[in-house]
Amino acid sequence: MTAFDDLMAFQRETEALSQVAGRLGWDQETMMPRGAAEQRAEEMAAMESVLHARRTDPRIADWLDSAIPANEVETAHIREIRRAYDRAMKVPARLSAEIARVTSRAQGIWAGARAAEDPSAFLPILTQVIALRREEAACLSDGTGTSAYDALVDDYEPGARAKGIAAIFGEMRPRLVALREAIRASGKGTPALDGVFDETMQISLAAEIARAFGYDFNHGRIDRAVHPFSSGSGLDVRITTRTDPAHPLGALYSTLHEVGHGAYEQGVDPAYLLTPLGQGASMGVHESQSRIYENQLGRSRAFTGWLYGRMRDRFGDFGIANAEDFYRAVNAVETGFIRTEADEVHYNLHIFLRFDLEQALIAGDLSSRDLEAAWNDRFAADFGLTVGKPSDGFLQDVHWSVGLFGYFPTYSLGNVYAGCLNAAIRAARPDLDDRLAEGDPTPATDWLREALQRPGALRSPLATIEAATGAAPEPGPLLDYLEAKFADLYDL
Amino acid sequence: MTAFDDLMAFQRETEALSQVAGRLGWDQETMMPRGAAEQRAEEMAAMESVLHARRTDPRIADWLDSAIPANEVETAHIREIRRAYDRAMKVPARLSAEIARVTSRAQGIWAGARAAEDPSAFLPILTQVIALRREEAACLSDGTGTSAYDALVDDYEPGARAKGIAAIFGEMRPRLVALREAIRASGKGTPALDGVFDETMQISLAAEIARAFGYDFNHGRIDRAVHPFSSGSGLDVRITTRTDPAHPLGALYSTLHEVGHGAYEQGVDPAYLLTPLGQGASMGVHESQSRIYENQLGRSRAFTGWLYGRMRDRFGDFGIANAEDFYRAVNAVETGFIRTEADEVHYNLHIFLRFDLEQALIAGDLSSRDLEAAWNDRFAADFGLTVGKPSDGFLQDVHWSVGLFGYFPTYSLGNVYAGCLNAAIRAARPDLDDRLAEGDPTPATDWLREALQRPGALRSPLATIEAATGAAPEPGPLLDYLEAKFADLYDL
Repeated sequence: MTAFDDLMAFQRETEALSQVAGRLGWDQETMMPRGAAEQRAEEMAAMESVLHARRTDPRIADWLDSAIPANEVETAHIREIRRAYDRAMKVPARLSAEIARVTSRAQGIWAGARAAEDPSAFLPILTQVIALRREEAACLSDGTGTSAYDALVDDYEPGARAKGIAAIFGEMRPRLVALREAIRASGKGTPALDGVFDETMQISLAAEIARAFGYDFNHGRIDRAVHPFSSGSGLDVRITTRTDPAHPLGALYSTLHEVGHGAYEQGVDPAYLLTPLGQGASMGVHESQSRIYENQLGRSRAFTGWLYGRMRDRFGDFGIANAEDFYRAVNAVETGFIRTEADEVHYNLHIFLRFDLEQALIAGDLSSRDLEAAWNDRFAADFGLTVGKPSDGFLQDVHWSVGLFGYFPTYSLGNVYAGCLNAAIRAARPDLDDRLAEGDPTPATDWLREALQRPGALRSPLATIEAATGAAPEPGPLLDYLEAKFADLYDL
Repeated sequence: MTAFDDLMAFQRETEALSQVAGRLGWDQETMMPRGAAEQRAEEMAAMESVLHARRTDPRIADWLDSAIPANEVETAHIREIRRAYDRAMKVPARLSAEIARVTSRAQGIWAGARAAEDPSAFLPILTQVIALRREEAACLSDGTGTSAYDALVDDYEPGARAKGIAAIFGEMRPRLVALREAIRASGKGTPALDGVFDETMQISLAAEIARAFGYDFNHGRIDRAVHPFSSGSGLDVRITTRTDPAHPLGALYSTLHEVGHGAYEQGVDPAYLLTPLGQGASMGVHESQSRIYENQLGRSRAFTGWLYGRMRDRFGDFGIANAEDFYRAVNAVETGFIRTEADEVHYNLHIFLRFDLEQALIAGDLSSRDLEAAWNDRFAADFGLTVGKPSDGFLQDVHWSVGLFGYFPTYSLGNVYAGCLNAAIRAARPDLDDRLAEGDPTPATDWLREALQRPGALRSPLATIEAATGAAPEPGPLLDYLEAKFADLYDL
């Protein structure tokens, strides 16, 4: 056994334990009895404490010093292990365990507060979560010359920095706002679905679409959750969805979104199972998969044409006269409160708001006490709407309750990457629309599997996109795609 | 912090991790995608390796040496921690991890082999499991003067030995056989349920009964599994059941059985949460709860009278004319192949067979290759029936696939304990039958909660029963109860 082999054997067990911790999180959102929350918090903290001890095991430093990587893959393993080790060494075990314990509790409290429209029930623990993550960010950024917020972002999008993100978002905002204004000015309405849609049938159609997009039920499953998510890597990758009898598109497109995440994890080279490379390259790259499945493929005219037929088969007449009207309904641009329900034009504006607010929270320029007012003011300014209830405002997302600060911008980075990938696929596979029109996305999903998903975390996020598309990512292709698509839809 | 406090804090984290490992087991049987089995085996092995390291942590020996218990409860904590530590120190980490890995795989292989009626698919891994458990038993019994099999039994029923168990079973066998023969000779048939029983309705009635018997859904849930089981302690105690459209009593009584287990765990003093006392005293005492809920309460004339009305409400006419016929149907004595479907008269005979065969397997007197023939021969001798397919024979139970040797006798010990507890409750609560006739088992379940469940593992198994009933357990009350009940039912 070489030092490299020892290191990888140790790492493999850590990865397995990390999968266990992830599955506990899945269980908490889908299966756990309500009254188990306090015990679960202790279980999560115990797992976190075990993982922290392993991630800071002094043998790792010795192995890293002695290991001699023999090729590109081994070099990438070493890079990822060193990255995680350096990060873990900076955070005291006590803090790490405390964050796990508090965020596990906070998630349940958030769900209750959101259901009861009662911010006051959530604010005390949110304040705790922010304080803990600020403390962690201070540990992480100490001596690196980056800001506390940058240190958090780096967890989700290695190498990304707030300044660079702000520049990208600054390039996107005027073109998105102009597009939104042009659509508003067009005065053109969109047809709406009308009916009561059996929820079991929704799930069954969602599963059919998931299968068509390559999600493998032999290594996954779909359950219901308040806030849909995907979870797990390797041979056990689970996704969730939610249904609403009046809004079948919500279940279908949130499933398709999670299928993008799930198929990415399932598509990673099996040789990387339970290694640092055996998962997505970053949250942004992950989101590129969920967004391209959901939007560039799932909301295309070609695919919605096929989907319209399947919807008619399943639900009969639902007030939409033809496939073109269905395409317009699926792509309706309407200003709304909820990020996860936002159309492609508004979506990134929701992210820009969160990006700015969470930077202020972590910098200490905004207190959790003032968060709701700050949110509502900014929302009125950006969207022209008054937030009427907290579940339409700052209580809508689970992220901050579980400590995910620095995560939101990866959604928009994912959109940018998806724009680049879509342009590359369309150039490589001119037959894509013909196939999508038959309900077959495989020209795109096969391309993505080979070019982007299979390498897992072999390369950095930017290098992953560049290896797939041949060019460094930038927002142009996404904005071009959006302007062309919606100019056509709204006769702009 | 005293040494005792340090020990308990460390132990609490171990108990939390042990709950996590248990929940992985639950997931494997209820939720896990089929193709995840190999990865799950690594996850379980990693958890087992973590737990083994904690259970053999050298600090435990120091803490145990220095800790001064201040009262009966602390003394019991020390006793249980020392017991677990001594046990863990005897088994090498490698062996412990290997057992976890192999049994996790074996369970899936067993399920496949059972479904395909293909013993040859199962025998290779069963041979491995037996070899590993023999190796473990040799480590455990080394220098103790007990047999390898005794060492395994002691895991499930602390203090019990094969010799003592054989003596109890020897006392039971002739009276059970005589009772079975008398029932056969009576020539009296029993009415049978006739119909197709909606499975969702079965689950809903099972849940109603579970609630009535005190199972708390705020700290638990019911799912389906091939082989029903209960899982977890403290605030998260889950049970499973199975349904068959032709046999609603299977779902109802297997649920009631698991409710006995689940209510026991939920009934333990909350002060013992995540401590060594925060669970049942032994598998035998556990089984006493499941059996008394299922049989002495659930299959009583009084309760079945109430249940008959609920069944009629839910399912309409199902071919049973009146409550007395339903009582007879629920308690039909019929020789069958399947242990879990056996009536109260035959049940222990199924256990005696397994007890003898597994002793031979562990002693090395019987090879897994010869197991099927040995099972079938013994079954013909004891039951007068020829086993026609492996799923009716040695492939019917999950236990051996997951390495549970020495576990089966605790089922019959549980029956013996249940007989003693039933006699004590009937003496203390002469109103029990009147209340059961209204669907209300609380005179019994409240008595059990206070007298037996609340103390958890404070006392040894025998002392737990004796503290509740006032006398050392012996098989007399169970046999008296069975003879009286079935003499009445079959006019003997």
